Parts: sequence; structure tokens; C-alpha cells
Amino acid sequence: MVLRIANTMTMGAEVICVGTELLLGDILNSNAQFLARELADLGISHHYQTVVGDNPGRIQAVVKIAAERSALLLFTGGLGPTPDDLTLDTLADFFGLPLVEHPEILADIEAKFTSRGRGVPPSNRKQALLPEGARVLPNPLGAAPGVIWQPQSHLTIMTFPGVPREMQAMWRQTAVPYLQQQGWVQQTIVSRMLRCWGISESAMAEQVLPYLGLTNPTVAPYASHGEAKLRITAQADSHSAALALIEPVEVALKTELGLDCYGTDQESLAAVLGGLLQQQQQTLAVAESCTGGGLGQMLTTISGSSTYFRGGIIAYDNQVKVDLLGVDPSLLAEFGAVSEAVAIAMALGVQQLLHTDWALSITGIAGPGGGTATKPVGLVYLGLATPNRTALAVKHEFAAFRGREWVRHLSANGALDFLRRHLLRGMADAINSPDQNA
Amino acid sequence: MVLRIANTMTMGAEVICVGTELLLGDILNSNAQFLARELADLGISHHYQTVVGDNPGRIQAVVKIAAERSALLLFTGGLGPTPDDLTLDTLADFFGLPLVEHPEILADIEAKFTSRGRGVPPSNRKQALLPEGARVLPNPLGAAPGVIWQPQSHLTIMTFPGVPREMQAMWRQTAVPYLQQQGWVQQTIVSRMLRCWGISESAMAEQVLPYLGLTNPTVAPYASHGEAKLRITAQADSHSAALALIEPVEVALKTELGLDCYGTDQESLAAVLGGLLQQQQQTLAVAESCTGGGLGQMLTTISGSSTYFRGGIIAYDNQVKVDLLGVDPSLLAEFGAVSEAVAIAMALGVQQLLHTDWALSITGIAGPGGGTATKPVGLVYLGLATPNRTALAVKHEFAAFRGREWVRHLSANGALDFLRRHLLRGMADAINSPDQNA
Repeated sequence: MVLRIANTMTMGAEVICVGTELLLGDILNSNAQFLARELADLGISHHYQTVVGDNPGRIQAVVKIAAERSALLLFTGGLGPTPDDLTLDTLADFFGLPLVEHPEILADIEAKFTSRGRGVPPSNRKQALLPEGARVLPNPLGAAPGVIWQPQSHLTIMTFPGVPREMQAMWRQTAVPYLQQQGWVQQTIVSRMLRCWGISESAMAEQVLPYLGLTNPTVAPYASHGEAKLRITAQADSHSAALALIEPVEVALKTELGLDCYGTDQESLAAVLGGLLQQQQQTLAVAESCTGGGLGQMLTTISGSSTYFRGGIIAYDNQVKVDLLGVDPSLLAEFGAVSEAVAIAMALGVQQLLHTDWALSITGIAGPGGGTATKPVGLVYLGLATPNRTALAVKHEFAAFRGREWVRHLSANGALDFLRRHLLRGMADAINSPDQNA
Repeated sequence: MVLRIANTMTMGAEVICVGTELLLGDILNSNAQFLARELADLGISHHYQTVVGDNPGRIQAVVKIAAERSALLLFTGGLGPTPDDLTLDTLADFFGLPLVEHPEILADIEAKFTSRGRGVPPSNRKQALLPEGARVLPNPLGAAPGVIWQPQSHLTIMTFPGVPREMQAMWRQTAVPYLQQQGWVQQTIVSRMLRCWGISESAMAEQVLPYLGLTNPTVAPYASHGEAKLRITAQADSHSAALALIEPVEVALKTELGLDCYGTDQESLAAVLGGLLQQQQQTLAVAESCTGGGLGQMLTTISGSSTYFRGGIIAYDNQVKVDLLGVDPSLLAEFGAVSEAVAIAMALGVQQLLHTDWALSITGIAGPGGGTATKPVGLVYLGLATPNRTALAVKHEFAAFRGREWVRHLSANGALDFLRRHLLRGMADAINSPDQNA
């Protein structure tokens, strides 16, 4: 039995994504990447991924192959209410088992629809049907539950909906604890992500080059959405032993990276900045032109941001800059809306209007139109008004070829980072010059 | 022979991505999506995708399965110079054929390295080895070429490197013309996506149920990011013939869906609303509480939105609602910030402040904190001020269990949709009651 379990573990997991939309190229298979990374973190071997369309015959052919070479089949997709959602019907059919209605799932679906003031459409009732012998894998975020099921010995099947956030929540809340309890997770793998803003992936990698050769923990650079990241991954017999391997490396890397490293794991720039403002009991307002509200939107992703974020002005039209923010029309005439002078005036204007300690402003050319030889697309000025009612500005030239949303994304994050660095430098100065604050 | 070709075509293409980095989740499989979309556009059927690691035994197992069920195998990855790049060695081994050095490839690799002022590293020499009988699939952008190869009858193999831009250039320059010349491209496939807001996927599917059984074009429902979509896909001998099949179905579906269908293909709600405002030469302002700027951010995703969007107030703090938007404090005291009365006052306030024709407001409880028994998380009021200086509001109860960002996303899109429907109803009324406008 022990040998058989070992063999089962060697056979590993297989990710099977069901959906004609994947075969048509309509969507990117981010679910496969998520599950791949999670399996790697858990130390569960994973040798194959398969994508198949919403076709019963082909789904059955894939299950036959997978059941011979893998011991854990993770299905995504095909759990929806429409007739082309066939995963469970087809699996039940393949293993010769009937579908059974689960009243508790139906009640849960009814509760979810009722909370939105709607009745359950007849087609959603089919989501309460599971193959005989399968356990419910609850879906906290949507109607379609999944299953955990051993249709034959040494074969475990889990099904998830195709919607990434539902799949991820189900994986973390139910699937991972189940796999741990069943002995699938033998070595613990722990990862920590260090997140950097204002430095490129390659510059970051060069700065920490000696660490990239480590073996346990490993250190690997990544880049996404304008930020550079370092992933530190350790394997050990226990979570605490893995953490003990990570911690000295994390400390050393953070020292190397200095202010460029703004946070770890799920922390966002908005969360880190919010924490600093909360700590100092100070308030913030924003004045946005080219981002059109994107900076305020980011700040308010944080629940509880109302303790430090009061609001702001979306001054998309120049007249709004003049009328509401009190920007002097002569500045607009002399320097143009995208200028250091206007960024500073916008920040001071919104600070005064909303009575805040700090204010951030953004004015730039997001493109694709509107650029000139002297003011190209991607040119952005960020302004910062400080508690002593002075202001400073910084100029950025973002890569225009990456498009409008890229420029806006970097602008809003750049503004958050601008104030974060300013606050941290101020706090460091206060510590280093205690006399001035005595 | 004709029958055999037909059968080969029915078996279709299979995309096989080789790379342990995919199984570790280090990278997203964008190559599979690219090839999927290209195959769909060419009308080449494509039923399976497989991902396998850099392991000869498992690559051979995958080739064996694929050669039985598919007639065109498209490999990506595993063509590099390092020892774990094994695709061609393994394929040659599987079909029992030797690798042959191609001097012209070696010369090309040498030229590419020389142009960068470097000599050819010994490991790159192996990239000049191709299986006997395979043709070179030239790589204009990198060192590693691919192959086009018929190792047995009714089986075509193409290999591409894993680097997306090299793979895409090779696909377009050589693979597509080859497939056209070999008769693989017989039918053209054209798709159109109808996009709906304010209706669930299942309710939409029920409304158009008879159409879901069509065969050419096919009609399939999807859901993503709170919107429901219908994809109409036609196969025909030419692009125009496919369009001719789509158009009557598109017209019929749009009639069924009415105002719920807001646009097609890449159109967003913000773009559609912007188009309507531009057409009527009218302007818009926003007043946002729980979305914190997200509505303005969405409106300004559209380049050129400055012709109708003037800006707005992010009134996250209640004092901002009073001071800037002129919301009567007694309304806040009596009804609370999340109420119909305050939504209306916010919309009228920002309309007056920014001198616009229309104004939208949002006030709600995004959660996870802040809900009460009478005002649960997910409760949102949207306000709309109209050109005659009156305002209306609508109440939503969004599914709180889906989280803060979900509530905010639906709120901002809901506001766009609120004005869109209002404008369209007004335009329809104007057409239906010509006397009033004469």
C-alpha cells in the first residue's frame, strides 16, 4: 500500500482545461499557470497539461489518457449553467456513474440568486447535479461548485469553474487543505515575493546577481505590470524550517534593494502607502488629469482607506483645472497643461480645497494622440504638495509604444511611489537627525 | 486519396508546448493562445493542446498520442542550445531517423552571431541538426530554426522556438503560406462577439435559446467580468460569405436582446457611451464615492474622451460631498451617505460645478467592512442628472460575497450603462414622437 501511494505520487498531477474558447484562442489559459505554480509550491509533481473543447467524446478520450498517466486530475471549466458546459456529465458517463442532485447546493445557489434579488434560472439548477460518490468542492464566489472525487482507486479528480477568481478561492480554501491532509504535500515549499517599483527587472537582477545562484532558497526575478519582483523559494520539512531558510536571504536582498523594494507578497503600492499615512495620521487628496481617476481608484482599492484618503478632483478639462483647482490660466498658456508648473499648481490647489496634509497630482500625455515634438506621448509630470504647503514635481517619460493604458498605469503607480519614497526619506531623516525634532 | 485528405483535415491540428517552465507556472502559455487564434482564423480545426516538460520519455508519450488523433502537430519550445532543449532529438528518436547537420543553418547562425560581434558558442552548433527528411522552417529573428516535416504519411510536424516573437514571425512568414499551399486552409472562419450588460449569462442564454442550436453560424454564450457575451461564428469559402452568414443572425439576436446588448467585438461600455455623447455633442461629469475615481478612469480609457468628459469629484469623505458637491448635511444625517437622496444630490452638484449636460454619481458600500442590516455590503445607488436639471437614481444590490473590487467594477460599469440606456431610450422616444421635436 505504501509503495502504491508512492507510485501514485510519482504519477503526479495533470491539469485539464475544458473550453472551446481556449481552442479558439479567445482567452489566455491563466488557470493552467496558476495551478502549475501552486503545484510547484506544494511540491506535487506535474508532468502534463491538456486543453480540450466542449465535446463529450474528446473529453472522454482525454480522461482515459490522463487516468493512465496521472493520479490527480485537476479540471477547470465546463461547470457553467449552459448546455455546452459538459465536464461533470461527461466524467460521470465515463466512469459509469449517475448524476445525483444535492439539495444543499441548490439551496446555496438559491441563496446567492436571492441575495441579488433574482430567482434561480432553470438552467442553473443543473449545477446542483454531481456524480454519485463525489464530494462538493464549495465555491464561495459563484454559483457553480466543484467536486472532489475518487471514481477509482489511486485516482483523485477535482473540478473547478473556469472563472479564475472562483477557481483560485476554491483551490486555496478547500483543495490545498485536502491535498495536505491526504499526504500529497510531503516537503513544504514556501515562497516570498519581494516587490519593487522604479527599477527594471534587469537592473534589479544585476544588483542581486550573487543571490540568483542560490539553491535553497532559490531567488528568481520576474517582471509584471511595470514592477520588478524577486521570488525567494525554500523547501524544507516544515513551514517554519522553510521560513528560517528564507528570512536571512530576504533581509539581505531588502538591504541591497533599498527604497526600490516597496513590499512583499500581496502588498500593493496603495496598501503600503496607506499604511504609512495611517501610521503618521495624515491625509491625502489627488488631482488627476490624464489618469482620469485611476489614482483615486487605486488608493481606494484598500478597505479602510477613508481614514487617510479624502478624495480629489478629476480635472480632465483644462477649465476644471482653472475653476476648481485654481490653476492660474497664465501657467496653462505659458507652460501648457503638461508641465511642472501646472503639476505643482494642481497639487497645491487640491490640497487647499480638501484640507489635507498631502496631495498628489498627475498631468501627462497618455496618447495615442496629443503628442508633439517637445511633449511626446508618455511625458508625465507628477506633483506632490507637502504639509508645509510647498510642492515639488517629478518628470517621467514612459514608453509610449506600450500604449495609453500602460502610460496611465505607470503614472498612477508612479504617484503612489513618489509619496511613499518621500515619506520614508522623511522618516529616515527624522531618525538620523533627532536634534531637529527634539 | 481525396478521402484520406478529408480525414486528415478532420483530425485537425494539435498544439504541443514543450517546457518545464510552463509546468512550473513560471510563464503564461501565450504561444498556445496565439496559435489557437491563428488556426481558428484559417479554419483549421484544432481539438487538443498539450503541455509537457523537457523530458524525452514524456515527450515521446505525447507524440505517440498526438500522432494518433491529430494530423498537424505544432510544437513550441525546446529548440534552444541548452542540454534541456530536446524537442528535435526526441522527435528524431521517436520516428527512428537520424539527425543531419545542415551547413546552411550553421552559416546562418554564424552570420547572426557575427553581426552581434560574437563567435558561435559550441552549444549553438546543435541547432543546425535536423531530423533526416525535415525541411528548414527559417527563423528571421533568432538563432534556432524550426522544421516542417512529414515523418509518416498524413502527419505534418512543425516546430517553433518558445520565444513568442520568433515563433509568430516564423508562423506568418513560412508556416501559413505552406499550409495554404498544402490545402489545409479551405474555409474561412469569422466570429463576432455581441456584448451585454445588465443580464446574466444564463438569462441571456435562455432568451436566445433557439439560436444556440444553430450549426453555421454557431452561437455560444460566455461570461466575463460581469458581462454576458454571445459569440457568433461562421465558416465559409470567403470572408464575405462568412459575414453574410453572420449578419442575419446578428440582427435577430440584437433584436432579441434589445437594450441589454450594448456593443460588438472590442467595443467597451465606455466607448459606446462616449460615441453616443459625441453624437449628441453633450458633456458629462462624475461624482464618485465608493468607486474612488474608477468611473472617471473607465471613461478616460477612450482616447479623445476629452470632447465629452470634463472631469469630476472624488467625494470619498462625506465632508467633500458637502463642501464641494453642495450635498445638504441634513440629507446625510437623515438618509445616510448611501441613499437615493444623496446620489441625486451628488449628481446635481457635480453637474452644476462642472457645467455639463449630464452627470453620473455613485455612492455605495463596497465592503468588506461598513455594511449594516439595512444597508448591506453591495448596496449601491447610482444617480443621473439630466440636461433639464432634474435627476433620477437607481438602486443596486451587488453580490457582496464576490468582494470589494467586484462591487466597485459593477458600480462603475452600471453607471455607464445607466446613462447609455437613458440616452438610447431618449433617442428612441424622439424618433417615435416626431411631433414633439418638430
